Amino acid sequence: MGLAENNKKLVEEITPMDEDFARWYTDIIKKAKLCDYSGVRGCMVIQPYGYAIWENIQKELDARFKATGVENVYMPMFIPESLLQKEKDHVEGFAPEVAWVTHGGTEKLQERLCVRPTSETLFCEHYAGDIRSYRDLPKLYNQWCSVVRWEKTTRPFLRSMEFLWQEGHTAHATAEEAQERTRQMLNVYADFCEEILAIPVIKGQKTEKEKFAGAKETYTIESLMHDGKALQSGTSHNFGDGFAKAFGIQYLNENNELAYVHQTSWGMSTRIIGAIIMVHGDDAGLKLPPRIAPIQAVIVPVAQHKEGVLEKAAELRDRLAKGFRVKLDDSDKSPGWKYSEYEMRGVPIRIEIGPKDIEKNQAVLVSRIDRSKKFVSLDQLEEALQALLEQIQQQMYDAALQNREEKTSSAADYETFCKIVEEKGGFVKAMWCGDEACELKIKEDTGATSRCMPFTQEKISDVCVCCGKKADKMVYWGKAY
Amino acid sequence: MGLAENNKKLVEEITPMDEDFARWYTDIIKKAKLCDYSGVRGCMVIQPYGYAIWENIQKELDARFKATGVENVYMPMFIPESLLQKEKDHVEGFAPEVAWVTHGGTEKLQERLCVRPTSETLFCEHYAGDIRSYRDLPKLYNQWCSVVRWEKTTRPFLRSMEFLWQEGHTAHATAEEAQERTRQMLNVYADFCEEILAIPVIKGQKTEKEKFAGAKETYTIESLMHDGKALQSGTSHNFGDGFAKAFGIQYLNENNELAYVHQTSWGMSTRIIGAIIMVHGDDAGLKLPPRIAPIQAVIVPVAQHKEGVLEKAAELRDRLAKGFRVKLDDSDKSPGWKYSEYEMRGVPIRIEIGPKDIEKNQAVLVSRIDRSKKFVSLDQLEEALQALLEQIQQQMYDAALQNREEKTSSAADYETFCKIVEEKGGFVKAMWCGDEACELKIKEDTGATSRCMPFTQEKISDVCVCCGKKADKMVYWGKAY
Repeated sequence: MGLAENNKKLVEEITPMDEDFARWYTDIIKKAKLCDYSGVRGCMVIQPYGYAIWENIQKELDARFKATGVENVYMPMFIPESLLQKEKDHVEGFAPEVAWVTHGGTEKLQERLCVRPTSETLFCEHYAGDIRSYRDLPKLYNQWCSVVRWEKTTRPFLRSMEFLWQEGHTAHATAEEAQERTRQMLNVYADFCEEILAIPVIKGQKTEKEKFAGAKETYTIESLMHDGKALQSGTSHNFGDGFAKAFGIQYLNENNELAYVHQTSWGMSTRIIGAIIMVHGDDAGLKLPPRIAPIQAVIVPVAQHKEGVLEKAAELRDRLAKGFRVKLDDSDKSPGWKYSEYEMRGVPIRIEIGPKDIEKNQAVLVSRIDRSKKFVSLDQLEEALQALLEQIQQQMYDAALQNREEKTSSAADYETFCKIVEEKGGFVKAMWCGDEACELKIKEDTGATSRCMPFTQEKISDVCVCCGKKADKMVYWGKAY
Repeated sequence: MGLAENNKKLVEEITPMDEDFARWYTDIIKKAKLCDYSGVRGCMVIQPYGYAIWENIQKELDARFKATGVENVYMPMFIPESLLQKEKDHVEGFAPEVAWVTHGGTEKLQERLCVRPTSETLFCEHYAGDIRSYRDLPKLYNQWCSVVRWEKTTRPFLRSMEFLWQEGHTAHATAEEAQERTRQMLNVYADFCEEILAIPVIKGQKTEKEKFAGAKETYTIESLMHDGKALQSGTSHNFGDGFAKAFGIQYLNENNELAYVHQTSWGMSTRIIGAIIMVHGDDAGLKLPPRIAPIQAVIVPVAQHKEGVLEKAAELRDRLAKGFRVKLDDSDKSPGWKYSEYEMRGVPIRIEIGPKDIEKNQAVLVSRIDRSKKFVSLDQLEEALQALLEQIQQQMYDAALQNREEKTSSAADYETFCKIVEEKGGFVKAMWCGDEACELKIKEDTGATSRCMPFTQEKISDVCVCCGKKADKMVYWGKAY
């Protein structure tokens, strides 16, 4: 097969995003080997390239958590049924979608255990035993683990029966401290998404209807995918003392009085990998932000059979490996095949080096964003690479922000609102009276849900876009994953 | 409560190891807050200090794996019953001790799912779909996850229903490559234990009776605890093409012929934290090897109410944090309380700094090993700290090796053998004919099992210590955790 056909074949295997966004998404995941289906319905095999992205996410987030005093722990994966039932709203929210263990070996269990869908109840049980006095507070715990939710329909990364995440669970002496922590962690998520993943987010509060089961308040960051659908990208919950009362988590305060703790929880999951794909990708494949890319630059030798080319390429690899995540592809595949392959896998920069380049003491840097080429002296390779990576990171953020802005509309009346949701999609900013009936009606009429009440409010009109009653809350609405 | 009483109380809470080693072990775990029991029988809550040790283990091991080309992945936590049954020996070994999921939400599953006790079957299923040609080989995958085994009796870290581990699973073109990888990973484990955990190990092969369910050969590293009992600390299995045949994992070789792959797997778990405790600890508590200790040095200010002391201590903390894992305890507890506390928690070095030290531009370094004191100029603090940490690491290894040597005996006849196992414990080197009947008899008579056939063989006699038949294999025997 010739080079041109080969490249064509590679590209052909990815459905164009405008033709079928859902197929484009799964084509990319399969082709780039991010994850694979397993024999268990809705469970993923996360392959090396996909897992390497998750490892980089973990490393970045974990450092940010620890910088705020958070410590990692590990809780059991099983929750006894009676423990799950201790907080009323929480069990109602999760019991319908958990996996139940009924037998251990050949023995039937006296009490069923569910596989954790989230671990509030386990942290509460531990805190109830471990917290005695104000000196034990705050508790700032986090765990990295997998959780299981028995979903009916599943999609890789976006909605799977089992997924990986981190869940932070904190306990505080006062309501103010808990509130501060809830907002602090939301900001950690937002900064991480914007600075590292190049994904702009809207920060805001969930409505009563959309909040977490058992929470007093849920805060969220919402991002917008290329197809105009929203993705909840991270959430932070303030529980007040609701769980503390259900689980009896009390401490002796400085006046020697018993008081209930105030709690929070916050999580981000492998879903966010779906966001990276859908915010940045194009018809050629993935586009990975340099700060999270498992391979920041791939070195492709040109005419590698010629004397000295592979040696020089290996020398550059060893040099660059000191400061960058770099890979040399010295396989016997053609340069053209490699160009398409690493484009498809979203590697931000390709470094071409051939006999002529070596003669001129240069290399060619090609950007994944626009395929622009830069001839760079080998003496300045590190500086040039660093500068181009930073430029690409910024370009990706700018492009994502521009896309979101283009797909964000305002609607003052219901007709306009419905038309935008149906025809244009994206975020629609509109006023809401606070009544759940309006949320339900909007969802039924348009498929859009309230994404959040953003911290940065605007006044679109004086009345609810749905019922026309007086309204002073601006809400971001949209169809969502 | 006075200082002396306070210290006494702290120490009293740990049962002396010679009085009751099992209680000493659980006292330390509880007191140092390594892990806690949960509401689910046999499941642990790994607390921040215990988990920080595990994080350091992960970081070290993961880097060593990756240096050999291993890539991380994530497999589902569930295994369908039919998949578990594909390899006969494997299912026989594991089916009696798995947890079964029978319901998802309110729906009864058509096929039961077990929570993974180990993931050979899942990796095999994935490899069967993913491996096509010799170009796809080798596959060098690893995952960090938790597994569940329905154990009857459990002990924190040593034997729990759920535990954390890594499991590597590789597929190779040839039997030779698989064998080489099996031995390579055993060496990674052995080097890690000796260099990082300061735990000397015996490398060897398991007997047929003791090998992993489904393996052709199992290799092991065995370490010896302070009480003379052995602990299997890491294993590496060569599966040959047994799993490949059961799961149909074939590839086209360079001659375009279909061939079966050859596989390995290898694992190390949170059990190893039990080994760290039981190899190094003493009646004052934990002793953590500097290379794995979450806190390598704790700064304890003396007379901290005096002007300048806390400032100086904080300045030192900031300085040392650049190169060491260091903690400043500036709480209002007494220095004496802190001394005992961090000794009990196994922190290798305590740095005392008080007004007189500041005057003399010095600090006092106190070693956890022997409480020896060194007065060190603040100008040379980093160098002195580094040197002392290295010295402690070596001292801990030497002490562990000495203990193992003192508790290792040879036996040429059965009477001596039984007497040693009963009275002295430890490892007993003795010849074995290769017959499982002798292993069973020895276990029944003494409680000792064959730990391994070490790579470094010695000739203790010409005949089996048990049956007296001709024997040319020397085996390490011992009671084990």
